[in-house]
Amino acid sequence: MLPRRYVDQHCSIAASLELVGDRWTLLVLREAFLGTRRFDDFQHRLGVARNVLTDRLRRLTDEGILERARYQEGPERFEYRLTGKGLDLWPVLVALMQWGDRYAIDGEPPVVLRHRDCGGEVDDRRVCARCRAPLGPRDVQRLRPSTTPGAPGQLIA
Amino acid sequence: MLPRRYVDQHCSIAASLELVGDRWTLLVLREAFLGTRRFDDFQHRLGVARNVLTDRLRRLTDEGILERARYQEGPERFEYRLTGKGLDLWPVLVALMQWGDRYAIDGEPPVVLRHRDCGGEVDDRRVCARCRAPLGPRDVQRLRPSTTPGAPGQLIA
Repeated sequence: MLPRRYVDQHCSIAASLELVGDRWTLLVLREAFLGTRRFDDFQHRLGVARNVLTDRLRRLTDEGILERARYQEGPERFEYRLTGKGLDLWPVLVALMQWGDRYAIDGEPPVVLRHRDCGGEVDDRRVCARCRAPLGPRDVQRLRPSTTPGAPGQLIA
Repeated sequence: MLPRRYVDQHCSIAASLELVGDRWTLLVLREAFLGTRRFDDFQHRLGVARNVLTDRLRRLTDEGILERARYQEGPERFEYRLTGKGLDLWPVLVALMQWGDRYAIDGEPPVVLRHRDCGGEVDDRRVCARCRAPLGPRDVQRLRPSTTPGAPGQLIA
């Protein structure tokens, strides 16, 4: 629990951090951008405790960042999808990824974002480095970089 | 302490969050971008406990995100400045601020970023909405929005 002063700050950064500043929350959102929708898939891919995951998914749903949709009856099963408010967090995740690629990871970036239409890389302003189109989360592919020079990477999502 | 699995993830987002994912850390960085350099100023502006601030400044310095520089002898006094690695976190903070302006704050944004040269607003790709220049942290002014239509806002930094 952060001291009261923290939430008192009339600051959009502090306010965003109140909603999504928890680290597991941001990794749940990363998975959602990679196409993960079901509880067991989030749990398996993140290796997060089920009670922690339940809590984070509930908070994200309560805040309207994810929406819960039934995909099966008898037994009922639900999946979690990014809302517009959730999709608008993409710039935060891209900025964290790009900074981490440069400063927090040894060696090659583990994931490369490429423009789905032309294969250009996504630059630090989320513009295609090849065709200069401004890009959103639905415009990109996520690839594991190839270890063979010139070969395309392996598609993740 | 996050479970071991968290840090095992070969992921640049997770790796960035290991370094700067703590909420007080991000607010210390916000203050640094606003020009705050001295311990007492950070402490006063954030209302953070001194031991917490000491810990966050030490970690940021150890990671090369801030650098500690002596500005006075007898008694020795130090200040904290953003390094290049620290300045490169600007896109993360801008993305959090812009999302918060839209979704996490009631009413008008508390701070507006404007291009120092032409007064244009900073768009969601950190490009000047007026003259289309790509902007970095040194190119912008931070203003409290004016309550009088048409009047310039009050300069913060």
